[in-house]
Amino acid sequence: HYSSQNRLVTMIPGDGIGPEISVAVKQIFSAAGVPIDWEDVDVTPVKGPDGMFRLPPKIFESMERTKVGLKGPLATPIGKGHQSLNLALRKAFALYANVRPCKSIEGYETPYKNVDIVTIRENTEGEYSGIEHVIVDGVVQSIKLITENASMRVAEYAFKYARDNRRSTVTAVHKANIMRMSDGLFLKCCREVAAKNKDIRFSEMYLDTVCLNLVQDPGSFDVLVMPNLYGDILSDLCAGLIGGLGVTPSGNIGEEGALFESVHGTAPDIAGQNKANPTALLLSSVMMLRYMELTSYADRIENAAFSVIREGQHLTGDLGGQSTCSAFTDEICRKVQAS
Amino acid sequence: HYSSQNRLVTMIPGDGIGPEISVAVKQIFSAAGVPIDWEDVDVTPVKGPDGMFRLPPKIFESMERTKVGLKGPLATPIGKGHQSLNLALRKAFALYANVRPCKSIEGYETPYKNVDIVTIRENTEGEYSGIEHVIVDGVVQSIKLITENASMRVAEYAFKYARDNRRSTVTAVHKANIMRMSDGLFLKCCREVAAKNKDIRFSEMYLDTVCLNLVQDPGSFDVLVMPNLYGDILSDLCAGLIGGLGVTPSGNIGEEGALFESVHGTAPDIAGQNKANPTALLLSSVMMLRYMELTSYADRIENAAFSVIREGQHLTGDLGGQSTCSAFTDEICRKVQAS
Ligand SMILES: CC(C)[C@H](C(=O)O)[C@@H](O)C(=O)O
Ligand SMILES: CC(C)[C@H](C(=O)O)[C@@H](O)C(=O)O
Repeated sequence: HYSSQNRLVTMIPGDGIGPEISVAVKQIFSAAGVPIDWEDVDVTPVKGPDGMFRLPPKIFESMERTKVGLKGPLATPIGKGHQSLNLALRKAFALYANVRPCKSIEGYETPYKNVDIVTIRENTEGEYSGIEHVIVDGVVQSIKLITENASMRVAEYAFKYARDNRRSTVTAVHKANIMRMSDGLFLKCCREVAAKNKDIRFSEMYLDTVCLNLVQDPGSFDVLVMPNLYGDILSDLCAGLIGGLGVTPSGNIGEEGALFESVHGTAPDIAGQNKANPTALLLSSVMMLRYMELTSYADRIENAAFSVIREGQHLTGDLGGQSTCSAFTDEICRKVQAS
Repeated sequence: HYSSQNRLVTMIPGDGIGPEISVAVKQIFSAAGVPIDWEDVDVTPVKGPDGMFRLPPKIFESMERTKVGLKGPLATPIGKGHQSLNLALRKAFALYANVRPCKSIEGYETPYKNVDIVTIRENTEGEYSGIEHVIVDGVVQSIKLITENASMRVAEYAFKYARDNRRSTVTAVHKANIMRMSDGLFLKCCREVAAKNKDIRFSEMYLDTVCLNLVQDPGSFDVLVMPNLYGDILSDLCAGLIGGLGVTPSGNIGEEGALFESVHGTAPDIAGQNKANPTALLLSSVMMLRYMELTSYADRIENAAFSVIREGQHLTGDLGGQSTCSAFTDEICRKVQAS
């Protein structure tokens, strides 16, 4: 169902370096002749008649039509009561699985080689339920909410992802030795789904053990699936293993659509100076192309980006080079066109 | 108040390799002439008249008298309803702070150098409250409980630890952007204590950011203080950075006493074969000696252990050598005696 020519994609350029890295991605998509058109949307919250700030109606209208979005970094508005815009978007579009592939990048050295891990994070509940109470003065509880529905949904997604991407093992990450009921339910769902997907190996591991083993032997991990907070932690840890958020793509998958995003910050200190590294947003757009089944475009763009990084002549400062965002981008365009 | 000769210390040798590594520590303490006597205690749960298993009275009597214990690895009894013995001990003795110094060991190579981090974990509440409910079928909540008392207590301990050990910075690790009330309260307590301890620098960092930065630049961290689960995770992550649980010491500090322990497993596969590595238990005993203000003994034993590892002639298999537990131990004894 993604076969018509020039599908529309929602683009949220974002704040800080967001606009320049979005332009870079658009330029590379043009060079590759990707058959999509962009619809740019600003998501700055607007004040409603009740004085509350909300996502502007435009983003709902756009995502309703396009079902697919690409998003740069967003600054959370300052002031009490402003929720993270990232979280607001996940919620608004019921994006239930956050997927982050972390694969070592040749030419970008870290203490680790051969990292090739995908973290799949339950994105809607758990420790992010937002339910908290003061019991008495000085005693607070936060509620971690785990449901069978959300756990089944993300577990099923993890196995489907593993199969679609020819991965061999899904590992459920948990602390069911401590949170026997909540993590216990999550784990039970994973086991149930595993039993129906015998072509994919299944394993279970305690969160603390995963952390320890990730820094000792990251090559031993494949696809990880876990509740919300554990995913927040492990996705950043895994990103760190391959060089950080500047090179790590991310996608939020929903039942009705998906939003791909770079998860690094807005880097206001270098914004507008042509120094930004568009890699994370570009690799997120490559995930998006695969999601849209525009696989050959995805492969060409990804190969071009990795070969520019491997060759090392046109890298931005954060990648250890002295080049500009536009020179890096131009070089990727050249490679894409030559391919 | 720890000045009298030959104080008594409770020893829980533990299961699997526990007995052999406990013997190793005792031998090294004898060689160093440490003025303590050991009281060995078995903590295998005993069945009460109500059919429930409980810690044996002996451990309470012993710790009551000695106030200080050293503990090898414990196997959690198999069967439903058996709580982790480690947790039971933390609870029974109100051991409110778990302290784990993770310092790179010369001669034991990992991808990282210059790691020198101390994790201080709130050890009594948070996600470990044990309070969980099924709301309706398929919907479960676990309660994360944060109290001002426990947060203040562990924050105060962190600053005291930093001062006593000439560390410069305490960083509070949190997700108060998500758990505004619970982590918010923890953070507020840390800030309050920081304001009263201006000689120690204070910083705050999101848990996910800490994970990312720990694998990218562990040398930038000093003392970390955090709620229970975050400590479970980060203490293992940091242990991984320096070579794992086999070389990482740990202490549980209470208001009435303290229990030092190796946090690795019981390694039943090599138990009784003279292959076990006593380093984690030995370094835990060194922490214990410092706690008891037997500093010069601590220094001598620690130096001896590190020089045996650095020289690399008498290492156990897990450390990359081919030596036995007893040969490694004997060599440390020789160094201690020569010092
Ligand atoms: C910005 C923040 C609210 C968010 C989170 O905690 O989920 C971020 O860390 C992420 O991983 O997308
Ligand atoms: C054994 C387990 C219950 C324990 C924990 O989760 O605290 C362990 O991981 C630890 O860090 O001591």
